[in-house]
Order: sequence, then structure tokens, then C-alpha cells
Amino acid sequence: METRMEFTPFENAALWGVIVAAVIGLLYGYYLRRRIVRMDQGTDEMKRIARLIQDGAYAYLHRQFTTIAWMVVILFIALTLSGATAGWDIGIGRGVAFLLGAFASAFTGWMGMTLAVQGNVRCANAARKSLREALFVAFRSGGVAGMYTVGMGLLGATIIFMIFRERATEVLLGFGFGGCLLALFMRVGGGIYTKAADVGADLVGKIEAGIPEDDPRNAAVIADQVGDNVGDCAGMAADIFESYEVTLVASMILALAHASAGGTAEAMDLAKKWILFPLIVRGVGVLTSILGIMQVNLKSDQEHPMAGISRGFFWSAITSIILFFFFARYYVQDLRLFYATTGGVILALVIYKVTEYYTSGRFRPVQEIARSTQTGTATALLQGLAVGFEGTVWSLIVICAAMFASLLIFGGEGESAVSVLYGVSLTGLGMLTTTGVMVSMDTYGPVADNAQGISEMAGTSEEAGPVLASLDAVGNTTKAATKGFAIASAVVAAVSLYGSYLSKVALAQVGGGGGGGEIISPEALERLHIQVDQPAVFIGLLIGGAMPFLFSSMTIRAVGRAAFYIINEVRRQFREIPGLMEGQAEPDSARVVDICTASALRELAAPGMLAILAPVVVGSWFGWPALGGYLAGIIVTGQLLAVFMCDAGAAWDNAKKSIEDGLYGGKGSDAHKAGVVGDTVGDPLKDTAGPALNPLIKVMNLVGLLVVPLIVRAEGSPFLPIVGIILAAVIAIFYLMSKRESQEQIQVYASVGDKQE
Amino acid sequence: METRMEFTPFENAALWGVIVAAVIGLLYGYYLRRRIVRMDQGTDEMKRIARLIQDGAYAYLHRQFTTIAWMVVILFIALTLSGATAGWDIGIGRGVAFLLGAFASAFTGWMGMTLAVQGNVRCANAARKSLREALFVAFRSGGVAGMYTVGMGLLGATIIFMIFRERATEVLLGFGFGGCLLALFMRVGGGIYTKAADVGADLVGKIEAGIPEDDPRNAAVIADQVGDNVGDCAGMAADIFESYEVTLVASMILALAHASAGGTAEAMDLAKKWILFPLIVRGVGVLTSILGIMQVNLKSDQEHPMAGISRGFFWSAITSIILFFFFARYYVQDLRLFYATTGGVILALVIYKVTEYYTSGRFRPVQEIARSTQTGTATALLQGLAVGFEGTVWSLIVICAAMFASLLIFGGEGESAVSVLYGVSLTGLGMLTTTGVMVSMDTYGPVADNAQGISEMAGTSEEAGPVLASLDAVGNTTKAATKGFAIASAVVAAVSLYGSYLSKVALAQVGGGGGGGEIISPEALERLHIQVDQPAVFIGLLIGGAMPFLFSSMTIRAVGRAAFYIINEVRRQFREIPGLMEGQAEPDSARVVDICTASALRELAAPGMLAILAPVVVGSWFGWPALGGYLAGIIVTGQLLAVFMCDAGAAWDNAKKSIEDGLYGGKGSDAHKAGVVGDTVGDPLKDTAGPALNPLIKVMNLVGLLVVPLIVRAEGSPFLPIVGIILAAVIAIFYLMSKRESQEQIQVYASVGDKQE
Repeated sequence: METRMEFTPFENAALWGVIVAAVIGLLYGYYLRRRIVRMDQGTDEMKRIARLIQDGAYAYLHRQFTTIAWMVVILFIALTLSGATAGWDIGIGRGVAFLLGAFASAFTGWMGMTLAVQGNVRCANAARKSLREALFVAFRSGGVAGMYTVGMGLLGATIIFMIFRERATEVLLGFGFGGCLLALFMRVGGGIYTKAADVGADLVGKIEAGIPEDDPRNAAVIADQVGDNVGDCAGMAADIFESYEVTLVASMILALAHASAGGTAEAMDLAKKWILFPLIVRGVGVLTSILGIMQVNLKSDQEHPMAGISRGFFWSAITSIILFFFFARYYVQDLRLFYATTGGVILALVIYKVTEYYTSGRFRPVQEIARSTQTGTATALLQGLAVGFEGTVWSLIVICAAMFASLLIFGGEGESAVSVLYGVSLTGLGMLTTTGVMVSMDTYGPVADNAQGISEMAGTSEEAGPVLASLDAVGNTTKAATKGFAIASAVVAAVSLYGSYLSKVALAQVGGGGGGGEIISPEALERLHIQVDQPAVFIGLLIGGAMPFLFSSMTIRAVGRAAFYIINEVRRQFREIPGLMEGQAEPDSARVVDICTASALRELAAPGMLAILAPVVVGSWFGWPALGGYLAGIIVTGQLLAVFMCDAGAAWDNAKKSIEDGLYGGKGSDAHKAGVVGDTVGDPLKDTAGPALNPLIKVMNLVGLLVVPLIVRAEGSPFLPIVGIILAAVIAIFYLMSKRESQEQIQVYASVGDKQE
Repeated sequence: METRMEFTPFENAALWGVIVAAVIGLLYGYYLRRRIVRMDQGTDEMKRIARLIQDGAYAYLHRQFTTIAWMVVILFIALTLSGATAGWDIGIGRGVAFLLGAFASAFTGWMGMTLAVQGNVRCANAARKSLREALFVAFRSGGVAGMYTVGMGLLGATIIFMIFRERATEVLLGFGFGGCLLALFMRVGGGIYTKAADVGADLVGKIEAGIPEDDPRNAAVIADQVGDNVGDCAGMAADIFESYEVTLVASMILALAHASAGGTAEAMDLAKKWILFPLIVRGVGVLTSILGIMQVNLKSDQEHPMAGISRGFFWSAITSIILFFFFARYYVQDLRLFYATTGGVILALVIYKVTEYYTSGRFRPVQEIARSTQTGTATALLQGLAVGFEGTVWSLIVICAAMFASLLIFGGEGESAVSVLYGVSLTGLGMLTTTGVMVSMDTYGPVADNAQGISEMAGTSEEAGPVLASLDAVGNTTKAATKGFAIASAVVAAVSLYGSYLSKVALAQVGGGGGGGEIISPEALERLHIQVDQPAVFIGLLIGGAMPFLFSSMTIRAVGRAAFYIINEVRRQFREIPGLMEGQAEPDSARVVDICTASALRELAAPGMLAILAPVVVGSWFGWPALGGYLAGIIVTGQLLAVFMCDAGAAWDNAKKSIEDGLYGGKGSDAHKAGVVGDTVGDPLKDTAGPALNPLIKVMNLVGLLVVPLIVRAEGSPFLPIVGIILAAVIAIFYLMSKRESQEQIQVYASVGDKQE
């Protein structure tokens, strides 16, 4: 029994309006791009250095895309073949949507990064003139990534919905999965790249050779700059793209589940409104983000850059809220939707503030870390761990409060858990309304950072130095805050996705094809539970909870391995290139970039396999309720670990900066040395392991949703555990291969004097 | 409808047999104690130093007991008043049992510690003669703690069961809670003490003043030795005591729940057997532990100390398994009980091996950390974090495998989740069978460590040095391994306790007094679920998951604060006592001991309040299903964080030791300095924050079980959220007070040159 969804003329107009908004977003991004590319790049030396960074960045992304292409193809085939049970139109739609999602995510990352590597040098040049102009270039470079993120995400989802209507959710799952998977790879690969290069450059340069940061004699400096772009720009844009996508998909799935639980024409009408509202919210967000980006201008060179950025965020948020009210009041005629989305905007703000409190040098946590550097490295590290542990708890409590608000708003008499979770997904949507501005803020960070590096290397730092330092300091704050924001949005997205898990199971049990649009009786849903008090579910919960720990251990080790190669290479160059130390010869940066690229991509395989296959293994061994427990476990520890690592890392970074600004003896003091160690430990945590957990949480939850129908149908079949064993073996093989030391590695270790070899 | 439980003559005999076994355990402990106390203490200087350590240790425990007495009294009153709903005999029984449990836990810790501080000097003296004799003294000193742990635990539980029979579980909850609470305080207080002293002694002594470890000129060295005893002996013994207790209580509760779900006389008969079996298992364990301890003797001075210890463990395990078989086969006539308990013995062994792999210098993880010290402190720290993250995953997977085995053994057709969880609790029982030997192994560590310290300070290290170094190295391994074991047992205990949560809810809903022995219909139980897919439960799960992070942040900070005072005091003494540095004057050790004691006890309040009140707050705000989610969340992240911290800490410690043994330049090299920092960071993780999570997991789960009946009855009452708000405010006040800096602290900071003050 299926009910076809029909649109009123107003709704048709609204849908086209959303598409127009998405296109406007893309066009505005294109306009910003054109405008920045036309700007002046400064001196020849600046151009030369910028060219090196660009080449490295392009080379990396190019190799990354070709490396993961085979996996995308395999998954495309698998998803299309799922049409054998779900119906071929859905299967093909899902497969194509997966490709589109992957493409959109990759394209967003690519556009963000390619402009960042153009913007950096132009920002460095603008900084020679004024702060106002430099901020304009840096923020607008970020704005391109922001506009492509929102434009691509909205366009794809809206078109899919218009084609498939009430059956769109299944296809949208494919779209979301494509986005998540690419984001995972770009986050992990980019994260390993950026930190391996950074740790390598810092350790040999600052600590061993005693030369300053960004010194052109250091062969790893270019790789470090490239890393900022592939990690913080491309990785982050792809990551937020998929949060943006997944919250939208989740709200649409939940709206349909809510309607189908009723099964009547009125219910379908409500579902339609509940689906259209998120799309409208997104459309509004695109337009208000443009408004926000336009507001980011300094009134004078004396104004603090953060004031300009805050102004943009503020305008974007306020106008969004006003428009939400009108659509909720006059179209859906249910103000609860307005409260929930507005709650999301507030949540974004509160998370931003909480993260700032734990990571900015202006507040007590970072000041305490800085103070404890006086009693040595160990106390500074312990203090940072404590700050991270504490910060993650408060972020989590804020998220819980937002969820509890949804419970209060939507949990009235006669409302089901599905409505509450719809409310949670609206909170996520509200949170991501200002995505355009948020991505700009984040991408702005590496642009400013790179500009500083280029200026340093090209010898223009005397004229541009103070401006760029001020921009860079703000960039550190915005980077940390947007990371907190990205994780919170990931958790909200995952929790709301989680809400559709049981309807999937119910559908599969009654033999529904999983093609979407079927009606599940409320009784069928009532019978299903994921009960923590069942031993199998508890086992699932425990194993799920362990995954973020395992994943983090893999990514941290990967950075260590890759950094080891780089350190070795930089040392070799100092040793073997005559005159390098004296500044009379050029280092071979390209070789370091190559080593970075190769090692980062080699390290992708094992975590990738774990993310995709582990949910299938758990489901096939312990059953669908255990898989439900598993997905919940990942969300819990994923959020806690991710924020812990990001907060601790950023706090150490800023504690070091406080010392460099003159506390406790300033640069060169023992306190500073302790601060540098803290920063170096924190870097892979905050830029690799922590942020990679966002896409991990969502990839695993999406894989869970995609495979659970198969697991329910195959229940009791002896093949199921066998499939589980085979997949577990695949994970184990990749895992062990990642830990195996190559001949080259062993030689490297031996050359640095390992007496055990 | 209640069915009185009657015993057959054989069962009566078995119960008395168990009591006799418990008494034999206590007598054997007393015998060991007498024997050790009579031994020679060596030179006058050794006696003097030992006396200083003893005084410090007694002073600490004395002040600790008086400090927490008021809280014990308040909780005693609260539990007794719970008789108003549960029946006064149960209320009073529960209150008295709580006092007994608290007393037994404290007494176990006290006995373990008082003998450890007698054994240390005698071990130091014996080491002047032979390795064989030194091991004998050290291990037998540990044996006293071991025998009191098992003797007291078994005696208390058996007597309570014989008095209250089918209503015993409620009273046993009180007994378990008393034990857990004391263990929590002893773990946290002792943990803060030991690490504050250790960090303080190391930082000023080794790093700043450049004097060796355990140098008598360092005023914090005595406090450091005291700390080993109050932390590793008293804290650990109390902790394992309560794991020992809680697994027993859980298995008895589950056996009764299983029976009452049936409600027939046959079911009651089965329940009786299922209750008696755990008691018998414990009795067997006491006797085989004695056998095991007796086996710990070296055949010659050439044998490795670990060989002797392993022999003891092996004999104890094998004889236990054989006896389990006979009782399961011929008394209960159900071999599943044999499989489950034997599974527990195997689990203990596997956990031991996994922990050893991740923390011993003989294996790759620690070797990799040691190797990465060559590229600096930061890489060594990152490598250690990765090792910890990985190690905790494998420990968790082993525990899950054991739970899955219970599921396969007990999860047959027609069996409920309760039987499976009974199986899990039997696994826990089996695991803790060898407790006597395990506690001896653990307490042996600080005895050997102390002996080395005394020998160093008393100037007898030339004759006794090599023997003591070899004993100490083994002690590090056993300490790490028993920690892994303690955490695994805590998780198993908590999961099985968790199994009785729903029967509590069902009882309270039908208006049962919670007095135990009532019959719950299977239908009533079937209707109850803790569903992760409900938003409130998910919120509970998230908040529960956050608790171990918050708790860890509090304990790590507490160590930092306390250490800061000590560092300052030691520096002051070096500055102000003339001739101290030259060895011509004595440091004022007593003052450092005082500072340690005072600060450790001041730091107890906030974490203690959090542990006791937080479950009540969650339950009263979000309802009983959310409280269920909360308890599950604590178990998941509690286990993961605890093992992470213990593994990482021990791995850094042993990596440093490997370097000291000659790798990468040995003592004094840059690699060694990096190793020392790793060790110092790891210390509070492995000895304070990590182990404190064991009792935290159990205290919160027991509080949850005790308050859930009240929460179910008060459901919908407007007072409930108000109570929640008041209790949350109490937590907040203690939390903020713990973070407030005293005038003295501010002065201390100012004196070390904080430019911000």
C-alpha cells in the first residue's frame, strides 16, 4: 500500500525556489573565485613559493582520488546490486546517488582547496597593504569553499527528492554515504599528510637544527604548507559537506517514517510539509550565508579581525531565524519546527563558546596549561589532558541539553520517538544553517596560516608580518571552534539517523524491499527494541565504543610512521646537500612532498576497511539488535574522544602561543620548550585523529542502515557468520599489513641508531 | 507470595564448609603476618627509614578514615531509612551490611598496608642474603593482603546469606555498596597521594636538582614511599575486595531473579543451587589461593622470580578448575556452570597476557615507544597514546568474547537474558577465583619497590641492589597486569549487576517493597526495556559515557594541584635548609608527608559527591530508562578509558626502563629524558585516574540499583525534578570548590614567577 506524494503549486514553487537558492550559492562562489584569482600575487619569489604549494596540493588530491577510485567503484556496484532486493530503480538510483555524493564531496574539497592555494599568496600580498584587505582576501577565499559546500549539498538532495519523492530516502542514503565516505578518506588522508609534514618540519627544524618555523632551508616546510590545505581545507570542507547532507537526509527519512506510521493521506500531507521544511531551511541558509559573508569587512584597519567575522556570523544567524519563523508559522503551521531549528542556531553558538573557553588563551584552562609548563613538560601535558577530558564533557552536556529540548518540544502526549528524533534532526539543520559562514571561517584559517608561511619564506615578512600574525591568531581560534561545531553536528546527525534504524528493521521483517515509501504499522515498530539489557546488545555497545579508540590508535600511529620518514629525509638533506644549512643551496622540497603523499595514502587503507566493514561483521555475528547497540556505542565514545582530542590539542597550541607572547620567559625558555612539546603532541590529536572521528561516526551509521535489511532477512542463515568471518579476516589483513614494517622502514630505523635491529 | 528457602543437610554442610574455608583464609593470613613480623629488619638506618614510612602511612590512613566517617554515617542512615518502604528488617540489615562492607573493605586495605610497610624493610634486609629469601618475604607480605581480601569478603557474604536467605540480595547490595564506596575513596585518595608525591619527588629531584631517584636529600622521597603503600597496597586491596564482593552479590541476585521469574518450588530449588555454587566457588578459591601462595618459592637463586610467581598462579588455577568440575557435575548437575567459571579463569589469564603484551618491554608496543624517544618527547608521547588506545580495545574484545561465550553457553532455547547474565557473573567469579594470588602479586610490587627505596636511602644498595632491582622489575609487570585484571573484573561485575536492574524496576512498579524474595511475573519483566532508540535513554547513555571523562579530569587535576605544593615545598627546603644539598643536613620529610595527606584528602570530596549523586540526578530528571542508559554508558567508557590510561602509563614506564637498561644511549641521553617525561605523564594516568574508574563504575551502578525503586515510585511527581536540581547543585558546589584556588595556592603560583598574578 503506497501513497504517491503530490505537490501543491506553492510547494512546487518552494522546491524550485530552493533549487534557485542553491544555484545562487554556487554562482556566488564562482563570483568570489573569479574575483580573488584576478588579484595580484606579489613578488616573483612569492609566486614561486605559491606555485610549489599549489603543485604539491594538486598532486596530492590527484593521487588521492585515483587511489580511492577503485573503492568507490566497488561500492557503486554493491549499492546498485542492492536493487535486486530493493527494486532496480532504487538500486540504480542509490548507486548513482552514491557516485554523485562522492563526487560532490570531492568537488567541494577540491574547490575549497584549489582556491585556498590561490588565496594564500594573494592574502600575503594584500597584507603588505592593509589588514582590511588581507582579511577580505582570506575570508573570501574561505567563502568559496563555503558556498560550494552548501550549494552542492542542497542541489543534489533537492533534485533527488523531486525525482523520487516518497521513495527518495533510500536514494538519499546513497547520496549521504557517498559524501561521508569521501569525507572520511579526505579527512584521514589529509590529516595524516598535514601532521606528518608538520611534526617532521618542526622536530628537525625548530628542535634539532635550531632554525625558525617556516625557514626556507627546511625541506619539509613546503610539505607543511601543502598539508594545511589538504587537511584543513579539503578535509574540513568535505567533512562539513557530509554533516550538512546527513542531517538533511535524516530529517527527511524521519519525516517519512513519522508519516508512514500513520499511513493516511493526512499523514502523508504532514510528512510532505515536514520534508519540505528542511529543504526550505537549507535554502534560507544559503541566502543568509551569502549575506553573512558579505558582512565580513573591517570598518577600519584598527578593528579586530574577529569583530568582522562575528558580525558576519551574527547577521547570517539572525536573518535565518526570522525566516524560519515565517515558514514554520505560515507554511507548516507548527511553531515547534521553528523552536527546534532556532535551538540549533543557538546550539551552534553555545558550542562555539564552550570550545572557545577551553581552547583560547583568554580563559583559565589554557592559562593553567601555560602556567604548568613552569614545572616541566610532564605537568603541562597532564594539565592539557585534564582540560581535554573536561572540555569534551561540557560539549556533550550542551548537545544533550539540545536533545532534551527537542524531547520537551516534540515529546508531547501521543507523539512517538520518531517525532522527537525529527526534532533532533531539525536542531542539526538549524545548527548547520550558517554552514556557509562556518566553512569560510574554517578555511580562512589555513589561508592566513599559509600566507604567513609564504611571506616568511619570500622575505616579505617585515612589511606584512604584524598583519598576518594577527590574522593567523584569529584563524587558530576559528579553526578550533569550527572543529567543535563539526563534531557536534556529526553527533546530532548520527543520533537522528539512528532514529530510522528500527523502521529499516521493521520494513525488512515484513519483507519490504527497503525501497522507501512502504507503510510500517505502528504495531510492528512497537515490537522492536534495541535493549541495552540484552547481553548481545551490550556486547555490541562495548565493541562500538571501542571503535573510535582503535581508529584513533591507527591514525596516530600512521602520523608517527609518516613523520619518521620525513624527519629522516630532512636530516638527510641537511647532511648531504652542501651549503643548505648556510642558505646557499635549495632543499629538495618536492621529494618531501612525494614522501608525504605516498605515506598518507598508504595509511588510508586499514582505517577505511575498518570503517566500512566492521558494522557488517558485528551485525552478521551478533544480530541486528547488537548492531544497533554498536552504532550507539560509536556515537558515545566517538563524540567524547573527538572533542577531547581537538580541545586538548588546541589548548596546548594556544598555551604555547601565550608563552611566545611573553609569559613565563617567552620564546626559548624552558617553559616554552615544554609548550612546544605539548603543541607537537596535540597536533595529530586535533588535526588528524580527532576530526577523522566525525566522518567515521557517520560512515559507520550509514553502513549500518544500508546493511541492516540484509542482516534481518538473512537471520538464522549459516552463511551470515561465515560472511562475518571473511570480512573480519579482510579487516585483520589490512590491519596487520598497516603494522608491518617495510624493509625501507627498518633501514630508516636502523640508520637512526636503533640498537635492536 | 513468598517461598521460604530451605537447605538440605548437604547444603548446610556446604555453607558451613564455605565459612570454614573463609576462616582458614583469615588464619593463614594471620600466620603469614606473624611470620614476617618476626623477621630481622636489618641495620638501624633501615629501621629508622622504615619507621618514617610506617608513620606516614598510618597517619594517612588514620586521617582518611576519620575524614570519610561522616559520609559513611550519612549513607548508613539513608540506607536504614530505606526500610520505610522496603521493610524495617531489610532497611536495618542493609544499613548494617553497608557498615560491615565499608569496614571489611577498609580493614582489608589496612591489613594489606600495615604489613606491606613491615615487609618492605624485611625484604630489603633479606635481599642482602639471597634472591630466594627476598622473594619469599615480598610475596608473603602481599599474601597477607590477599588472604584478608578473600577471607573477609567470603565470610561477610556467607553470613548475610545464611541469615536472610532468599531476601539476602537486598542486604548484600548494602554490603557491596559499603565495600565499593570505601574502595573508591581509598583508590582516589591513595592514588592522588602516591602520584603527587611521586611527581613531586621526581620533578624536583631527578630533573631540577639532578640527584638520583630515592636520594635521601630529597624531602619528598619518604612521601613517595608512603604513597606506594597507600595507593598500590591499600587502594588496590580495597578495590579488588569489592570486585570480589560485587561479582558474588550479582550472581546471587541474578540466581534469585531467575528463580522468581519461574515462581515455583522447583525454580526456588534451582535458585538455591545457583546461589550456593558461587559461594562454593569462592570457598574453593580461598583454599587454592593458599596452595598457590605456598608454591611461590624459587628453586634456586638462579631462577627468575617471575617463574616462581607463575607457578603459584598456575597451581591455584588448575586445582580450582578441577574442583569446579566436581561441584558443577555432582551438586548442581549442570556443566554449564563449570564452563562459565572455567571461562573466567581463562579470561583472567588472557587479560593478563594481553596487558603484558602492551606493557612489557619484551614486546613490540613498548619497544616502539622506546624507539620513538629518539625523535623526541612528543613522538614518544604520541606512540604511548596510540599503544594505550590499542591496548584497551583488545582488552575489551577479550571481555566481549567471554560474554559472548556466556551467551552461547546459557543462551539456549527458552533461556532468558537473566540466565545469560548469570553466566557472565560466573565468568567474573571464575576470574576472581585466584584473587588471593592476584592480590599477593599486586601488593608484592610496592613491597619490592619500597625495599629498593629503603636500601637506597640506608646505603645498603651495594649488597642488595641487584636482587632488589630484579624483584622490582617483576613487580612492575605484575602491577600492570593485575590492574588490567582488576578493570576487567570490574566490567564483568558491573555488566552482571546491570542484569538485575530491570527486575528492580518491575518490583517497584508492582509496588513490591524491594525487600527481596518477591515474585515478579515474566510478563511484567517482558514489558520493560531500556531502549537505546528512545531519545531519553540515548541522552542517559551519552551523559553516562561522559562521567569517566569528567572524573578523570578531576583526579588528574587533583594530582597536579597536590604535586604543585610538594614541588614548592621541596624547592623551599633545598633553598632554606643549609647543607641539605651537600648531604650534611636532613630534609623535613614529615612536612611533605603532611602536605600530601592534607591535599589528597581535600581532593576526595568533589569526585566522591559526583560518584554518589550523579546517578540520582539523571534518574530523577530523565526517568528510570535513562538511568539504565546512563549506567551502561559508564561501563562502556569507564572500561575503555581505564585500560587506556593503565596501559599507556605502564608502557611509558617500561619504555623508560628499557632505555635505562642501555637502549638508545641509556641513562642521561636525550632518549632517556624523553622517556622520563613519558613516565611522568603516565604515572597519574596509570596509578590515579585509571584505577579509580573501577570503583567508580561499580559505585555508580550500585547507587543506580539502590535508588531506582524510589525513582519508579515517584514517577510523575513534581518533587522528583526538584530533588534532582538540589542534588545537581550540591555536585556543582563541590565541583566549583575543588577548582577554586586558595590564597595559599595563589601565593605558591606567584612565588614560582607567574607573571599574570
